[in-house]
Amino acid sequence: MRGVIMQGTGDVTVADRDEPTILEPTDAVIRVTAACVCGSDLWRYRGIVETTGAPMGHEYVGVVEDVGADVRTVAPGDFVVGSFIASDNTCEICLAGYQSRCVHAVGMASMGSQAERLRVPLADGTLVATPEHPDASLVPSLLAASDVLGTGWFGAVAAEVMPGKTVAVVGDGAVGLMGVLAAKQLGAERIIAMSRHADRQALARDYGATEIIEARGDEGVEAVKDVTGGLGAHSVIEAVGTHESMLQAVQSTRPGGHVGFLGLGHGVELSGRLLFSSLVHLHGGPAPVRRFLPDLIDRIWRREFDPGRVFDLTLPLSRAAEGYEAMHERRAIKVLLDPAA
Amino acid sequence: MRGVIMQGTGDVTVADRDEPTILEPTDAVIRVTAACVCGSDLWRYRGIVETTGAPMGHEYVGVVEDVGADVRTVAPGDFVVGSFIASDNTCEICLAGYQSRCVHAVGMASMGSQAERLRVPLADGTLVATPEHPDASLVPSLLAASDVLGTGWFGAVAAEVMPGKTVAVVGDGAVGLMGVLAAKQLGAERIIAMSRHADRQALARDYGATEIIEARGDEGVEAVKDVTGGLGAHSVIEAVGTHESMLQAVQSTRPGGHVGFLGLGHGVELSGRLLFSSLVHLHGGPAPVRRFLPDLIDRIWRREFDPGRVFDLTLPLSRAAEGYEAMHERRAIKVLLDPAA
Repeated sequence: MRGVIMQGTGDVTVADRDEPTILEPTDAVIRVTAACVCGSDLWRYRGIVETTGAPMGHEYVGVVEDVGADVRTVAPGDFVVGSFIASDNTCEICLAGYQSRCVHAVGMASMGSQAERLRVPLADGTLVATPEHPDASLVPSLLAASDVLGTGWFGAVAAEVMPGKTVAVVGDGAVGLMGVLAAKQLGAERIIAMSRHADRQALARDYGATEIIEARGDEGVEAVKDVTGGLGAHSVIEAVGTHESMLQAVQSTRPGGHVGFLGLGHGVELSGRLLFSSLVHLHGGPAPVRRFLPDLIDRIWRREFDPGRVFDLTLPLSRAAEGYEAMHERRAIKVLLDPAA
Repeated sequence: MRGVIMQGTGDVTVADRDEPTILEPTDAVIRVTAACVCGSDLWRYRGIVETTGAPMGHEYVGVVEDVGADVRTVAPGDFVVGSFIASDNTCEICLAGYQSRCVHAVGMASMGSQAERLRVPLADGTLVATPEHPDASLVPSLLAASDVLGTGWFGAVAAEVMPGKTVAVVGDGAVGLMGVLAAKQLGAERIIAMSRHADRQALARDYGATEIIEARGDEGVEAVKDVTGGLGAHSVIEAVGTHESMLQAVQSTRPGGHVGFLGLGHGVELSGRLLFSSLVHLHGGPAPVRRFLPDLIDRIWRREFDPGRVFDLTLPLSRAAEGYEAMHERRAIKVLLDPAA
């Protein structure tokens, strides 16, 4: 089958890969209906994480083609959405809602979902079937649920967004925009999007942002304080993953407030003094998307919102390299790859 | 009046200080019944924080002698307990339960409670009167509520201790021991005290510890994992404030679990990668003791517990220097100073 291989920094190809097969009785193999490029894939594309000859992609929706003998909850023919981390969904950590750190977790990045087919380990605990095959217009939103929406949603939950709260979102990439959308859905009273790109500001407003702040760093912190009576936001969603963005997030939060952080920190070092004096709650990490999938699929099915709009470029799988380039150059927010096109 | 002055590193004297007076209409002046030496005072004693000619002490109970014109909730003659940070208890941050970061917060350390009398700013928002003058046997426990108990309690609340949970407490100083006590009161199923001092282990067991672990650092982390099915504790209370103790606390916590940290970090740097991958909740800082004071006073009054046992050395105020030395040399867990003796 065809699948994306990152040969090295900045070098994306679509090559022949072995057909995935059932290796464990808990596996499923799916035909990928849609996959996409993640901001975290760009760490590799940019050489910040060195990569040689690796299959790429961890987000996916598709149709089950085959299942192992022990799989009970999905069957061939089902349309499924899965988390970017496979989980058994039965261990103590999963049952507490932290499936991304399941004791049997398998990162789907190692499977490479930017391909025609995909092996999904722990299928019962990882995949959720939709009520029926979706209308094509729902596919982008369902794909978003696989990671970027689920991650933004986790950020909002981790930041304890709820009605009456003022929320700030640091980062206007796809995850930040999903954070805005999640904050709106969870009833936030005010949503401050930190963005300096007109197109992303527009989508943020469509998704529920009530205010846009272009300033960054200390100036961004002051700007958030200025519009919150000097106190800072109740909830801040951090969706960048740099030292600066993390500091900005913590410092934009009022004492007793909550920071939900989503960026896999590169070079982030938080001083004990800052954490102590800020008196904020800090929670984040790899989003336990599986916890939210049934609810998110339900909301998408009822067309309560349209997270799929975050995909502003759709390409056939064969043109994946263009997709990486467009995201790297910030010409696209997020790129959908269609293996059937 | 007489009061403790730290002349310089390791140099504690009891000297004449000006009598405190009402400076603001919201002030009270109290006669100090008991004060004490805090672990954080030792940072100064040891020269880690440079100090020259400073009044010392921020924990206190006493009897109100005078109040300003605007004070409504306490009156001369009342026996009162106050937080180590004065707060108005009316601002938005206070109302959210974070009085230690009140918009008008005043650190009581600047007032110096290790003295015969003490000015308490924002008396209505800072002091809580007991139902009547307490029996002498209750004074140590009420004094503990002023900081060390309130701080340990906050650690347990921040770590979301509740029935059924397994709690680990890093640090066997007074705050750690109060964390053990708080975890017990809040219904923890198992309480693991990390301690290598026989006397502190004994008190920890009396306060509710079900297990003692002597190992520290990575070995301490492994030991906690060994007794929690490899997962780590649900809740970890960090009560030391070093880089090592903070790492130990985060790494001893299961994914999705909660760390309540209490030590004012000196040299703590937490990497974004650790925080991200651990997927824990992190919350801590200066304890909003005022939030808990009414409840703690009530529990003490009903003799539900005896936090005052943490004071294992009582000295007249005039011998404060001996108290600092005993705590510095770890011969005492916590020293009570009696200005009337």
